[in-house]
Amino acid sequence: MISIVLLGTGNVATHLFNAFQESTVAKVVQVYNRGEKGLTTFKSSAKTTTCLNELIKADVYIIAISDDYISDFSKILPFKNRLIVHTSGSVSMHNLSNNNDRGVFYPLQTFTKDRAVNFKTIPICVESEKAKNQALLLLLANSISENVYEINSVQREALHVSAVFVNNFVNHLYVKAEEICETHQVPFEILKPLIQETAQKITSLPPKDCQTGPAKRNDQEVIKKQVDYLQEDNQKEIYKILTQSILNTNGNKL
Amino acid sequence: MISIVLLGTGNVATHLFNAFQESTVAKVVQVYNRGEKGLTTFKSSAKTTTCLNELIKADVYIIAISDDYISDFSKILPFKNRLIVHTSGSVSMHNLSNNNDRGVFYPLQTFTKDRAVNFKTIPICVESEKAKNQALLLLLANSISENVYEINSVQREALHVSAVFVNNFVNHLYVKAEEICETHQVPFEILKPLIQETAQKITSLPPKDCQTGPAKRNDQEVIKKQVDYLQEDNQKEIYKILTQSILNTNGNKL
Repeated sequence: MISIVLLGTGNVATHLFNAFQESTVAKVVQVYNRGEKGLTTFKSSAKTTTCLNELIKADVYIIAISDDYISDFSKILPFKNRLIVHTSGSVSMHNLSNNNDRGVFYPLQTFTKDRAVNFKTIPICVESEKAKNQALLLLLANSISENVYEINSVQREALHVSAVFVNNFVNHLYVKAEEICETHQVPFEILKPLIQETAQKITSLPPKDCQTGPAKRNDQEVIKKQVDYLQEDNQKEIYKILTQSILNTNGNKL
Repeated sequence: MISIVLLGTGNVATHLFNAFQESTVAKVVQVYNRGEKGLTTFKSSAKTTTCLNELIKADVYIIAISDDYISDFSKILPFKNRLIVHTSGSVSMHNLSNNNDRGVFYPLQTFTKDRAVNFKTIPICVESEKAKNQALLLLLANSISENVYEINSVQREALHVSAVFVNNFVNHLYVKAEEICETHQVPFEILKPLIQETAQKITSLPPKDCQTGPAKRNDQEVIKKQVDYLQEDNQKEIYKILTQSILNTNGNKL
């Protein structure tokens, strides 16, 4: 059994903890958090501590805290030559202290505290410096997910930026659409099946082949009408930039 | 039984035809197309014609052709005082010839020829000028869909613009993400579960509550790093505009 100490109690830590509860090859033996409060929900299933000096020996230490603190936190861990990994998309493995063996265990998903996720479908990207650590991380990842990838820090940065496009930016477009619907008193609800189908389509077709709409057709009349219809400059600007970008893809101009 | 003549044989026409095949209250009695070619697949289940003078009498005529031709096409129909509707999100009902009763029957979805859709879940937006026509269109819509809405032409324009945001623009962001992945030799595949979850989340939470990422956190360091990481000006521009727009939502600046 691979023993894990989990450092942090946020969304990623909580979802990882729940996933490892089901695993037959790995077990979270201890959860650490600076304050007592975050630890409450873990107490019934694992040891907990608020004191770094009380950390017990384990095969791997998973740092699941805010990106900004990962590097500093790794330096104050009171042991050496053990395996420590972080769970961030945007932090290089080399930002971890070299007092210990280093690695990354990055589950590529958007986590919300009260929303259940099926970890089996979540891609986990692992990276480390030594073959034996890589083997251990792969074993660990495969015990909770069916989509495990070996990804180095440069590739992970590409994934993280891409994730900003397909999650953060896409969600922002949903926000803008909801604004437009509210302005004209149309229920945003009506768009939800289209939103689902748009995401579904690319599971079976390349995104390029799914592109439709006035910009794809170079339908300047509809484009002009829609820009005029939008009431906020910010909406117009987003409309124009993305329309131009679609037109560019097909060699057209706004 | 409500009788329908379907005018057109494209994606929308085909999917509508298939949906009405299952309906117990409406039946497509004839399909018209300018050329013989498009009619082939309909011949076994309905009368077909390439000649407007051969159009038979029906309760409703559904014009499912390219937006640009709807208005002109409605003017050359060789009859009066019957109910004609179009299926477009962006064309006003009043662009139809007033020789006939006018209406709109707009299924809000992205259709691909070879991709099956479950019509029951597709919102249909209906509009007309007379109460008896509205009743007929509602009956027709309810016979194939569980999501039927009465939407006027101004509201429908809002829906259509919003659909451009949540479908066309969202899909373009998928295209951009795939580009970034290709540049750095990472499989785009890894992002697909995230794409699905992003769309799924907003079925249970308002989009505003789902927003995450560096712009939402006002994490200027990650934002700068990601802009620098992107290699194409077009990708940088989209990144900056959407990041700025998310920052604005929270009262921050780039």
